[in-house]
Amino acid sequence: MSNIPGKNFRTIWLHPDDPTAVQIIDQRRLPHRYEVRDLRTHADGAFAISEMLVRGAPLIGATAAWSLYLAALEAQAAGGEPGQQLEYVRSAAKTLAGTRPTAVNLHWGIERMLAQLTDVTDSDDVVARLREEAEAICDEDVQISRRMGEHGVSLLAEIAKHKDGEAVNVLTHCNAGSLATVNWGTATAPMYVAHERGIPIHVWVDETRPRNQGSQLTAWELAQSGIDHTVIVDNAGGHLMQHGEVDIVITGTDRTTRAGDVANKIGTYLKALAAHDNGIPFYVALPSTTIDWSITDGLRDIPIEERNPDEVTHVMGLDGDDIRTVRTIAEESPTKNYAFDVTPARLVTGLITERGICEASEEGLAALFPDRAGAAA
Amino acid sequence: MSNIPGKNFRTIWLHPDDPTAVQIIDQRRLPHRYEVRDLRTHADGAFAISEMLVRGAPLIGATAAWSLYLAALEAQAAGGEPGQQLEYVRSAAKTLAGTRPTAVNLHWGIERMLAQLTDVTDSDDVVARLREEAEAICDEDVQISRRMGEHGVSLLAEIAKHKDGEAVNVLTHCNAGSLATVNWGTATAPMYVAHERGIPIHVWVDETRPRNQGSQLTAWELAQSGIDHTVIVDNAGGHLMQHGEVDIVITGTDRTTRAGDVANKIGTYLKALAAHDNGIPFYVALPSTTIDWSITDGLRDIPIEERNPDEVTHVMGLDGDDIRTVRTIAEESPTKNYAFDVTPARLVTGLITERGICEASEEGLAALFPDRAGAAA
Repeated sequence: MSNIPGKNFRTIWLHPDDPTAVQIIDQRRLPHRYEVRDLRTHADGAFAISEMLVRGAPLIGATAAWSLYLAALEAQAAGGEPGQQLEYVRSAAKTLAGTRPTAVNLHWGIERMLAQLTDVTDSDDVVARLREEAEAICDEDVQISRRMGEHGVSLLAEIAKHKDGEAVNVLTHCNAGSLATVNWGTATAPMYVAHERGIPIHVWVDETRPRNQGSQLTAWELAQSGIDHTVIVDNAGGHLMQHGEVDIVITGTDRTTRAGDVANKIGTYLKALAAHDNGIPFYVALPSTTIDWSITDGLRDIPIEERNPDEVTHVMGLDGDDIRTVRTIAEESPTKNYAFDVTPARLVTGLITERGICEASEEGLAALFPDRAGAAA
Repeated sequence: MSNIPGKNFRTIWLHPDDPTAVQIIDQRRLPHRYEVRDLRTHADGAFAISEMLVRGAPLIGATAAWSLYLAALEAQAAGGEPGQQLEYVRSAAKTLAGTRPTAVNLHWGIERMLAQLTDVTDSDDVVARLREEAEAICDEDVQISRRMGEHGVSLLAEIAKHKDGEAVNVLTHCNAGSLATVNWGTATAPMYVAHERGIPIHVWVDETRPRNQGSQLTAWELAQSGIDHTVIVDNAGGHLMQHGEVDIVITGTDRTTRAGDVANKIGTYLKALAAHDNGIPFYVALPSTTIDWSITDGLRDIPIEERNPDEVTHVMGLDGDDIRTVRTIAEESPTKNYAFDVTPARLVTGLITERGICEASEEGLAALFPDRAGAAA
């Protein structure tokens, strides 16, 4: 990632010396360990998505795309007819599609890759087409994030005008940062651009239980980039908003309905309620790939992933120099682990997309994306 | 506590074999270790309060009361004039008053104890009067909790009528349980009484970061009592409410204004907002000792304690059989630790007190407590 000083990594890339492997940052042990892992099969890719070595809607889509390229290589290495290779890639697509039910980018990435396979003639062609498409998905994601940043920064610049040199206080939930995309992030993109342009900002980072993507990933990213920030528990945001300590909330989304409802990390809805109650603008940044044009009512139509209770009962951290996982909850107490919640459009001030900022409504989205809104209606 | 099978402990009591010591349960290592500690000086009591070996508004008040008894014994052991003893007790009161700024019971307990000292004649008399008063405070607290339970259970019984035998789903935040009082709890008292009476209930227990009083204390208490419960992260309550999985929310409060605003554990406000947004009743259970009749506007007038950031950055849990504390947040990321937030009365459906249930308003409270509301107005 370009945000790591002295490095120019993205979060996913083809191995520089071995085009049969894809490399990712294993995000599970950040901020304590920075580790790069090789994906050599589509099963490695599916594992990386389901076990959250990679996470974040855009990066999940990019990882699924690269995993299908790996599947094509696997089939080629095993020999057999081009038809068998296509069959193997399609079967890999099914495996990948089952890894995370809420993220719509996953399906978008897979479908875009499979669409390359309609007129391929031989096995090398399959591999080449999938590689090109995965690269294109990643390059476009970087551009899209950057454009969200350039649109979104206008909101921060406007607030800064009234702060008399004081930092604009942004609150964010979970990690919708560089680590959630190929680079720049979604919710963080406006923050990075503001920082580039010298607009003073301070970010309240929600810890984001159960997996602590805020305290472990967003805080790490912001620290690497030298952006002023403070980590708070998820419970604290309402209190800060009541006391004028938050100027704007910006989060990401894993799936957005055509009406502007957003499914994002569990707890987002609570922050949206608090922002609404205190008259604080609540924005959601999203690449248009997270929009599911086939659905309107997020509460009814977005499946909410339930994950392993271990994520609630166990917490990872440093004990001296060792990484350890401790059980915080007694074994006799059952737990439930819902990964996302839905924030209805009525609580969302606006959506920051790669084409500009719009109202969180069917009209708002259709005005920015007439080509897609019409096609799905 | 009577809630521990085979035991009939309270959470604080005079040492059965040594009347110069008071015993408490060290709540810091629950649910992993059940440990009883002796308090031998008022400084031990102040430490127990500030370091949260004991916590919860009523238990803080009771611990402060017993600590003044210990101060009187200390002064007596040191010899000197009765006047010096009184001076020492008053100085101890100041130390104790500074331990937790938000809890109003602390001041209530201290003032009630100091009021015993107006016409005492000798040193033994001081000790005896303070012991009697501390015992009375504890006995009354048990009765008050029990009465809150008996009033509050009517709410659960009413909901149960429409559940066709299914459990009433209660959500609670933090620990306003037996461990927060001398026995029975405040928010949990209606749950314990419901359980006694065979009303089926299931409790959603908010983990309650940063100190995890929900997952570590409330869950432990409920498990000891055989009450069905599920621990969730603080982020999850809104999602559950959106999907009809919560019938009622009941929390405690550390300080209540005469208008019905409540200062409770950080994050309570977010749950109140979600309950309001989903038409779910939100009740707060409180002994009238938590009412601060001198203030009306909680947001303006209740000081919010800011605690050590270590509580945010470090998490305690079990690693095999060992208790370990791990650092979850990188050292380069600053943190802030606000202990409470204020939920305005407009979001509170009602207050459960030892005298009955009332509207969260000046009129509601004055109708139940005309004797006190008038005196302070």
